[in-house]
Amino acid sequence: MSDTSPIGVFDSGIGGLTVLKEIRHLLPQESLIYLGDTARVPYGAKSKETIVRYSLNNTRLLLGLGVKMVVVACNTASAYALDELEKITDKPVIGVVEGGVVAAGRETKGKVGVIGTEATIRSGSYCNAIRNRFHGVEVISKPCPLFVSLVEEGWTDNGVASAVADEYLAELRGKVDTLVLGCTHYPLLKGVIGKTLGENVKLIDSAKETAKIVAKRLGDLKIENNSGKEGSLRFMVTDSPERSVRIGDRILGEKMISSAELVDII
Amino acid sequence: MSDTSPIGVFDSGIGGLTVLKEIRHLLPQESLIYLGDTARVPYGAKSKETIVRYSLNNTRLLLGLGVKMVVVACNTASAYALDELEKITDKPVIGVVEGGVVAAGRETKGKVGVIGTEATIRSGSYCNAIRNRFHGVEVISKPCPLFVSLVEEGWTDNGVASAVADEYLAELRGKVDTLVLGCTHYPLLKGVIGKTLGENVKLIDSAKETAKIVAKRLGDLKIENNSGKEGSLRFMVTDSPERSVRIGDRILGEKMISSAELVDII
Repeated sequence: MSDTSPIGVFDSGIGGLTVLKEIRHLLPQESLIYLGDTARVPYGAKSKETIVRYSLNNTRLLLGLGVKMVVVACNTASAYALDELEKITDKPVIGVVEGGVVAAGRETKGKVGVIGTEATIRSGSYCNAIRNRFHGVEVISKPCPLFVSLVEEGWTDNGVASAVADEYLAELRGKVDTLVLGCTHYPLLKGVIGKTLGENVKLIDSAKETAKIVAKRLGDLKIENNSGKEGSLRFMVTDSPERSVRIGDRILGEKMISSAELVDII
Repeated sequence: MSDTSPIGVFDSGIGGLTVLKEIRHLLPQESLIYLGDTARVPYGAKSKETIVRYSLNNTRLLLGLGVKMVVVACNTASAYALDELEKITDKPVIGVVEGGVVAAGRETKGKVGVIGTEATIRSGSYCNAIRNRFHGVEVISKPCPLFVSLVEEGWTDNGVASAVADEYLAELRGKVDTLVLGCTHYPLLKGVIGKTLGENVKLIDSAKETAKIVAKRLGDLKIENNSGKEGSLRFMVTDSPERSVRIGDRILGEKMISSAELVDII
């Protein structure tokens, strides 16, 4: 059995490339289509209804391209829209929250912090899932909306990044042993977050764990691509293709994308 | 002659309330409809095509409500979309760039700085208009995208605000005598911007000047509301009405809005 159909990956913008990268490294034979909804980015301060609507638009576009699986590489969309997306397709739909929850439960000694966008934290997805799955684990959460802007500006290691991290994370200091980076942009701030909270705090980046879940799910469903050839990579955005490639390179830390197609979503 | 039709004011989000407020204070008898496109905010990092498309959507919605004038209370939309908006209506369309340009030309001794979103600065609208209108005036510009996030977070006077202002404005220090705050959010950062550049630099907030232009245009066209009664105020957003009212209060510094209607724009 070999299924050469691509895997669809979407995000509100470009941050989800951190997830695409891990899938690519773990499963180089799979073809991938990435969709960044850059015309409507960011989702993190929007309402549940709007986040669900946009996520449905993105998923329909990917399904129309014949993907065998949809990966929601955006914490905000994963937190609010996963159930609704599963209703419109029989293909597997995988979010990034699950990976973060699994890894946090494995790593923690009992006190987990979760940071994310306003909408992700408001949804309670991480907190509820960790508490339900790992009894006795304490969870505290904190929205850190400015972290996304820092990454997009390329300010991941300057005085501003330290000042913002101090402002947001002071209340978590000494109170958590593990911190879930509940937004695809945040892994780029690992350095400054680590410095602010101290090196004893484990930082959980759900991208790697999500790639493992994708691999397992492909195996369970027997829809892996076993062709032995390197899969293709297609990169689509709803606005600003050139800017997206430029910021994408910064986020990936390597040249994975040669160009972006502009697509229209209504 | 008295025209009791409302004036329509739109912005990508809530920042344009700084313009609404000045119009309200100068022309209390005029009825106002404010539309904030909070489902697609921000416009400042998007392409010209997308900014024009969204601005057309907003303008059509306001025209459908019978407004006698459209005020584009968003620098990014004013910079890119004004010509396109004028094509679809014979009602006057007024942007915020003109007010900033007029005020900068009046105040400067010859060296003007302009700050704004990535898109506003990229458009060159301010620089070109100032140079064309005021010969011999030097203009330098600098995009300051993080300023919007600071205001929306309510961080207008803390260590982060100072660090961000330092990072962006260092290159303007000593080189300008006048600075145009080319984004409706920026007037809320006047304190920290003033401290960073020094008190000799005049800060131009186009909201007040735009209100004066609105008043003059209403007079020229003889479409003022002379009823003598206080005009009505209607507040519409495309997403998150409650959050919008909350941030709106912060931006206005007074309680002007009681509630927001949710409208759908495609």
